[in-house]
Amino acid sequence: MLNDYSKEDKVLLAVDCIIFGFDGEDLKILLIKRDFEPEKGKWSLIGGFLKKEENLDKAAIRILNHLTGLDNIYMEQLYTFSKVDRDPAERTISTAYYALIDIESHNNEFTNVETSKWFSLKNAPDLIFDHNRMVERAVSRLKYRTKTKPIGFELLPEKFTMLQLQNLYESILNEKLDKRNFTSKINALDILIKLKEKDMGSSKKGSYLYTFDAEKYNKKLKEGFVFKI
Amino acid sequence: MLNDYSKEDKVLLAVDCIIFGFDGEDLKILLIKRDFEPEKGKWSLIGGFLKKEENLDKAAIRILNHLTGLDNIYMEQLYTFSKVDRDPAERTISTAYYALIDIESHNNEFTNVETSKWFSLKNAPDLIFDHNRMVERAVSRLKYRTKTKPIGFELLPEKFTMLQLQNLYESILNEKLDKRNFTSKINALDILIKLKEKDMGSSKKGSYLYTFDAEKYNKKLKEGFVFKI
Repeated sequence: MLNDYSKEDKVLLAVDCIIFGFDGEDLKILLIKRDFEPEKGKWSLIGGFLKKEENLDKAAIRILNHLTGLDNIYMEQLYTFSKVDRDPAERTISTAYYALIDIESHNNEFTNVETSKWFSLKNAPDLIFDHNRMVERAVSRLKYRTKTKPIGFELLPEKFTMLQLQNLYESILNEKLDKRNFTSKINALDILIKLKEKDMGSSKKGSYLYTFDAEKYNKKLKEGFVFKI
Repeated sequence: MLNDYSKEDKVLLAVDCIIFGFDGEDLKILLIKRDFEPEKGKWSLIGGFLKKEENLDKAAIRILNHLTGLDNIYMEQLYTFSKVDRDPAERTISTAYYALIDIESHNNEFTNVETSKWFSLKNAPDLIFDHNRMVERAVSRLKYRTKTKPIGFELLPEKFTMLQLQNLYESILNEKLDKRNFTSKINALDILIKLKEKDMGSSKKGSYLYTFDAEKYNKKLKEGFVFKI
């Protein structure tokens, strides 16, 4: 049985942030160009190392802010990745966090526009280490989320069209959805308020704008669409 | 931007295993008596430190086997706990894993029967460090699971009564359920096969035994009880 802490192996613990954004059309992911070895010049998730005096949640916020300028983003812990040779330089374990944001409303926070960049998830470059696997796991968490909870509040602007909401679901699920079926399923969730305003940019007769009913949305978020025994 | 690994803080990374068991009546948790400082003599989850040459999944299996004798248990990663002072001896991060087992069928694997012990979750002792929080998080994961996926395959013997299954759900949800309502909800899931055999131990006229329809159970497990958009 273990009893002497000093004999145990210590490791570097990294935190990697997976930031998903939506611009009304495409699901995007925020990446940075790595400027040190190993894998210098390749694209990477937004990562750094945990410091002794902080917990993982705080490290994630600090690293994201330091490398991109993004602030006040609520990130959720996804999973801890620990493959032995995942970082060729040294034994490093990494806890991945993820967040969903509306790109437009955070645009002016970015401080490092040369090194950090939004990529459409469909056309994202190959990433360093096991970062592709991290993204895959986050995407499957998102897919599962669309099936158990409402989604969109953090990703869409305050007012949005039904088409934008459908685009969001299609981006996450990576499949085309039938418009009529989608509209009726979403309406059945009873989380939207249809506004009198229209978005006139998309077509001649315009498209009605919607907003989330915050109270109903949050109730559904808390409960989930679940089987009650 | 970070670039020199040698300047970064290293930490001890622990793994703690939360093993839930079921004996037909009560949801139980496996605990061990800690035999070293700090907190010597108190009850603890089954934990140890990650070694350089293994990943977290393997560490969890090794630690569980070493401390209890349990083998071939499928554990799922739950969450990584990182509060700065969670271990007073030294900065230690811990990744918690959890598993569900049928107590009866693993009884003969136990090697350390003096130090490891099953406790009813309702009457479990206070645990060291943040282990109570770990158990809370695992229990809420279990509760959520009962609402999105079938449960019981790993926890029940091959043949079981409807009452045992109801006891399991009641233990996890920590509430009494109406028998008629429970039976009809479970039957609606269409994952059980009713056998001709009866368990004659419980009452004079006996109780029918059931078994899971593995194919249907696994299909539901994969899909979840989800909202399809």
